[in-house]
Amino acid sequence: MKIGITGTGSYIPSVVTDNDDFLNHEFLGVDGSSFEQENTVIIEKFQAITGIASRRYAKPELKTSDIGFLAAEEAISNAGIDKEELDYIIFAHNFGDLTPGKIQGDTLPSLASRVKHLLRIKNPKCVAYDLIFGCPGWIEGVIQAKAFIQSGLAKKCLVIGGETLSRVIDRHDRDSMIFSDGAGATILEANPSSGEILAHASATYANDEAYYLYFDKTNSSKGCTNTRYIKMQGRKIYEFACINVPKAMAECLDESGVNIDDVKKIFIHQANEKMDEAIIKRFYKIYGKKVPDHIMPMSIHKLGNSSVATVPTLLNLVEKGELPEHKLEKGDVIMFASVGAGMNINAVVYRY
Amino acid sequence: MKIGITGTGSYIPSVVTDNDDFLNHEFLGVDGSSFEQENTVIIEKFQAITGIASRRYAKPELKTSDIGFLAAEEAISNAGIDKEELDYIIFAHNFGDLTPGKIQGDTLPSLASRVKHLLRIKNPKCVAYDLIFGCPGWIEGVIQAKAFIQSGLAKKCLVIGGETLSRVIDRHDRDSMIFSDGAGATILEANPSSGEILAHASATYANDEAYYLYFDKTNSSKGCTNTRYIKMQGRKIYEFACINVPKAMAECLDESGVNIDDVKKIFIHQANEKMDEAIIKRFYKIYGKKVPDHIMPMSIHKLGNSSVATVPTLLNLVEKGELPEHKLEKGDVIMFASVGAGMNINAVVYRY
Repeated sequence: MKIGITGTGSYIPSVVTDNDDFLNHEFLGVDGSSFEQENTVIIEKFQAITGIASRRYAKPELKTSDIGFLAAEEAISNAGIDKEELDYIIFAHNFGDLTPGKIQGDTLPSLASRVKHLLRIKNPKCVAYDLIFGCPGWIEGVIQAKAFIQSGLAKKCLVIGGETLSRVIDRHDRDSMIFSDGAGATILEANPSSGEILAHASATYANDEAYYLYFDKTNSSKGCTNTRYIKMQGRKIYEFACINVPKAMAECLDESGVNIDDVKKIFIHQANEKMDEAIIKRFYKIYGKKVPDHIMPMSIHKLGNSSVATVPTLLNLVEKGELPEHKLEKGDVIMFASVGAGMNINAVVYRY
Repeated sequence: MKIGITGTGSYIPSVVTDNDDFLNHEFLGVDGSSFEQENTVIIEKFQAITGIASRRYAKPELKTSDIGFLAAEEAISNAGIDKEELDYIIFAHNFGDLTPGKIQGDTLPSLASRVKHLLRIKNPKCVAYDLIFGCPGWIEGVIQAKAFIQSGLAKKCLVIGGETLSRVIDRHDRDSMIFSDGAGATILEANPSSGEILAHASATYANDEAYYLYFDKTNSSKGCTNTRYIKMQGRKIYEFACINVPKAMAECLDESGVNIDDVKKIFIHQANEKMDEAIIKRFYKIYGKKVPDHIMPMSIHKLGNSSVATVPTLLNLVEKGELPEHKLEKGDVIMFASVGAGMNINAVVYRY
């Protein structure tokens, strides 16, 4: 059975936050100690490694479910389907709906239910649920949708990845500069005229790796110890990802039977530019190849790391021609890959 | 393909909280007003409707993922499988890991990853994710596991439902007496010697119903308006459930081809005894029948409503002979049914 993406959508939040906006932040180490370097140096280094010059935050009145809804509306319209035909709404996120000034995430009801409510879908058979799988949540949702279609449970699925990480960052943590807000959405269908998922791979590393991304108190000794923020062991994640993501990608590519030279584009989770480049380099090295030019569309410079939203947003931007050096033609083989909290990794080989 | 449950487990938290323990609570209406009735009368009425005389809370040092792990350990041992063979760990919950004294739920990493960590499963191919689908989350996880097995993605899945609702209740809300803590777990396998899922049904009602269960501030005007708790529109849920749950159950039973007279037991979400009785009565009425004796095992009197945990816990208790008036024999047809936040409803017809 051919299962493919028939529509994409995204929502790019409107509040632009540049690196200079962090100049007055008091950055501290995990132990509360100050850094020797000036913020200008810290920010310069940060940009050199991650590639992030700017990022987007959602306006206070928009929550994760709201921006997920906006991306979903575009995907439904782009697919040209009747929303009442949807069998599933799968919403991948990690923190629920976050309201500025309130530190609790809200998942009652699920964000997928909220999107269904906002879309005014009447059909009760459209099953709405949330999926928590770290940054790879949207790709995992695509894999789950494929399983539902294959097993006869569904014909059309809406898979959304949305997050407002700007509301769970510790302003005393340098890593706060990485994270951003955004939402991407896609329609998956069993449809002979659409593209096709050729292979997929998923993995969860939960031994030493389980808490590489974790929830913890601010680095500032003056902060509330009961309020927790997104925290990461950056170096460990970098090393973990560089070893395990290329492996998962190669496994997935081999399963698809596609030759490495036929891969046209790789849409990788926008986590850190240097890390993404290192992953792709290692991936090609497995096949004794050098990385081809223009293989990897990147949005991280302007959009930062919006977790689950990065891959579907990137695909939507390329489809809309907003990254002019990247074009897709029917029949092109592309790959999706992601890594994040869990620690989870996944990949998909897709014939466009 | 025959897909069935090959092992069950549960964790019953150790802190017993009786109705009398609420005698000194200051119960208030949503508008902050006092009730005319004494607490003794409020509690008596509460018990007459819900059937709840006592409930269990987890010890402060145990979080949702910890009690989910304890239930999972029993299910794995009960199924007699090697934990390294698991292809999926699906953890259904609604609020993440809750720590007494900290109001934020923690889902970084996912609770499924935490359980995998605690189980010390090394195999990275065992994919761990969380599912948010209100109280019907565990049944929905079973349906998802079935789809994964059917589509060739998995052979063995661990499906957990766990919650510590005692940590998100508003002590000024009478409904706080309903909720409790607990965890249940099951192993699903494609296994010819096990039982078999014969049919299933799922639905999400997200129009007027989306916010029947919601997250909101305390009823007390003295409380923090930024801290939110589980809240419900009880009467609306009651009416909604009595109309829509019997319908979903009948649809599921009809699809299975099983005659209503051959249904041996119904394991229904332990939400409210009067509501559960009304649902079952209406279900039998659809077939022009009266409710048979001993059709519905109940644990709500002693365990309260532990959300996603109630159905798998009940099944495990019956299997262990802890509800002596309820016995299951190989070949018996049983049903699972649930209703909760979303508003979601689901049902499964199962040959034991």
